[in-house]
Amino acid sequence: MEQAVLKKLRYSGLGERLTDPVIVHLMANALSNPDLLSLAAGFTDNAALPIDLVRQVVGEVAELPGGSECLQYGMNSGRPGLREAVIGLLSAYQGEQSIELDQDHVLISNGSQQSLYIATQVLCDPGDIVLVEKPSYFVYLEVLKGLGVRPVSIPTLADGRIDLDGLRTLIDRLSRNGDAGRIKALYMVTYHANPSSRCMPEDDKRNLGKLLQSLDFALPVIEDAAYRDLFFEKPFSARSILSLPEYADLPCLYAGTFTKPFATGMKVGYCCCPDKQLLGKMLNVKGQQDFGTANFTQAIIEKVINDGRYENFLREIRPHYGHKMQILHNALKEEGLAEMGWKWDVPAGGLLLWAEAPEGFDTRMGSPFYHACIDDGVLYVPGDYCFAEGSPFNYVRLSFGVLDEERLKEAAKRFVLSVRLACQNA
Amino acid sequence: MEQAVLKKLRYSGLGERLTDPVIVHLMANALSNPDLLSLAAGFTDNAALPIDLVRQVVGEVAELPGGSECLQYGMNSGRPGLREAVIGLLSAYQGEQSIELDQDHVLISNGSQQSLYIATQVLCDPGDIVLVEKPSYFVYLEVLKGLGVRPVSIPTLADGRIDLDGLRTLIDRLSRNGDAGRIKALYMVTYHANPSSRCMPEDDKRNLGKLLQSLDFALPVIEDAAYRDLFFEKPFSARSILSLPEYADLPCLYAGTFTKPFATGMKVGYCCCPDKQLLGKMLNVKGQQDFGTANFTQAIIEKVINDGRYENFLREIRPHYGHKMQILHNALKEEGLAEMGWKWDVPAGGLLLWAEAPEGFDTRMGSPFYHACIDDGVLYVPGDYCFAEGSPFNYVRLSFGVLDEERLKEAAKRFVLSVRLACQNA
Repeated sequence: MEQAVLKKLRYSGLGERLTDPVIVHLMANALSNPDLLSLAAGFTDNAALPIDLVRQVVGEVAELPGGSECLQYGMNSGRPGLREAVIGLLSAYQGEQSIELDQDHVLISNGSQQSLYIATQVLCDPGDIVLVEKPSYFVYLEVLKGLGVRPVSIPTLADGRIDLDGLRTLIDRLSRNGDAGRIKALYMVTYHANPSSRCMPEDDKRNLGKLLQSLDFALPVIEDAAYRDLFFEKPFSARSILSLPEYADLPCLYAGTFTKPFATGMKVGYCCCPDKQLLGKMLNVKGQQDFGTANFTQAIIEKVINDGRYENFLREIRPHYGHKMQILHNALKEEGLAEMGWKWDVPAGGLLLWAEAPEGFDTRMGSPFYHACIDDGVLYVPGDYCFAEGSPFNYVRLSFGVLDEERLKEAAKRFVLSVRLACQNA
Repeated sequence: MEQAVLKKLRYSGLGERLTDPVIVHLMANALSNPDLLSLAAGFTDNAALPIDLVRQVVGEVAELPGGSECLQYGMNSGRPGLREAVIGLLSAYQGEQSIELDQDHVLISNGSQQSLYIATQVLCDPGDIVLVEKPSYFVYLEVLKGLGVRPVSIPTLADGRIDLDGLRTLIDRLSRNGDAGRIKALYMVTYHANPSSRCMPEDDKRNLGKLLQSLDFALPVIEDAAYRDLFFEKPFSARSILSLPEYADLPCLYAGTFTKPFATGMKVGYCCCPDKQLLGKMLNVKGQQDFGTANFTQAIIEKVINDGRYENFLREIRPHYGHKMQILHNALKEEGLAEMGWKWDVPAGGLLLWAEAPEGFDTRMGSPFYHACIDDGVLYVPGDYCFAEGSPFNYVRLSFGVLDEERLKEAAKRFVLSVRLACQNA
């Protein structure tokens, strides 16, 4: 018996590489103060979730002839009707009417997250490189870490845009080091990005495409458009890589979701990939992971899209989040954050506000400032998690998705107070 | 442009290893005959799916205070209430009252399939070995293939039970070849198994545990109990590995699901793992793949379990499938299959009937018999897919889940007719 207890369980390389995800640390810290107001979680607003609409739709689906079909297994790739609906939504964006996609280019996944994970599994071995933005989506950085893949940041210009000359220099440097063959994908969040809320201008996207075309290897591009539908006033004008001629010869993957804009609890996302071989390999992995996303939640979303109720819902929700963003933005301003040298862009969509503290201001988890915030009852995501190289340290990601108006104001007040105290102590 | 087209996309090792799943071949063959009756798909019966119950429950959930919560993100590990309910269901089985599990030992996944996939990722590197039964669940064999893991069959006795002496010899042989260190898990389907419909007697399970305890390494055991709740008359008496003292010191993982017994379209399964480190690593991967199974479908299942309506539903559904099994069994008998030397056990649960043809009878995909069945309008799963070593070739897996009574009879008729013709032509 004792001997048995001493036997050590051997994990795989992946098993050994894993460390607790950022969110676990955040939650553990949150638990230490039950009055904590969280600007950290990228949740949507419970008060704005479409529970009555969903109940109504489930009733309608149940009444259909053969209505129980939605409780049966569906296809591994997802419901044909939902895949058509995805194409319909995409081609409704200005400039994308002539998008060349059919059902067989679409995979329905458990949120867009699963599409990102599977694409990375299919494209990357441990030791490979994925080029990412600076900053990038921290959960995707964790995916890469888990799979043993090295994220390498694309250099940026002073205004935060991609530095194409810098990218070419970076690729040349990797080539000289013999690492060019290890670059397996470029990942970018192009609409109201997590965490920066930036949108990538179409010209930048096209110029990036030209640069990638000029490489002597086929570099897959993963465009994460999770927040594209969540603009506040009008859709961002840039077309997706699926419609831009500069990407026509590159292996492209466009990931989107109904989770964020409609209902996070549904966990239905998708990817579109005109490269049928690449998508076919992803479908094989999907078939092994779960052989299809829940048919029931897909059926609900298919129905609300086809009835126009999805678009109606979005029309209500967009100004709601726009208003919440304004609340947080105004509160930070009124409390005097800008006067202390902090800078942030006013987002035009999404759920996040990305703020830069003066250089040298340390926002990392475990920093005095981080602990002061917890003590004052407010939580944020330390910005260093969003950088492939783990720095700089002077950013925070603040979400205005969850908290109601009063709590958002209170959270902003607490946050700015912590900044002020930190400055006084420095 | 032309140059760009010629660039070859480089896949990962996993990407290169993937081949089309069995189900894709089956479906392609099915499409060639639209009148085909499928005994292949492991689907449940559309007519028996609980659509009215689900509609009612969604209405009730929506009426609850804070009812929209089910449309919000849930926890990565799953709803606490559902994890408690899982433990409640498990400990309701005879002999398992004192099962030592708490919420933190349970992970809710997209069907039990995702739990199997993630466990294998965490435990196995390419080139590693997983011991499997003979026959085993063919989708799991595909998981292993995709991850580059070698399935090795545990020897069986003439009556189909595990051959423990043979297993020890096998492990000794692997040790002599220097491969002992590569054995990373043992996977077994222990209740109304897919495909054999066998249940593993408790004595066999305990003796297996003793053997594994005697090894000088800690071998994780994955018990797949997907069909445990789907018995026809009474639950199979064996306790799970979670309750057996012989497994107390082994890393154990027990996978179950609500997908098969309740609604396949919900895709909610789970695993229980008393080894918190192992489960913790699995949770990390879960956090990267989708950070939580759809909260909405979990909430529905949690409610039907806690209200007792899940158990009521099972009480109705069990005799329904028992009856369908009898229809298929009787039809095969009446058509004269046994007289032609075919043998099968009468299942006591599950959705599958596993039949053995006389030696030398080739049931493989692409065999004359397989094509004759397609031509005659009936589809089955060739049994060789269920063997790690790809043989023997004289088995078929027949599902009685989907087809209604009349069609089941007709499918059996067509199947036996094809056998008869094959015997005459031989």
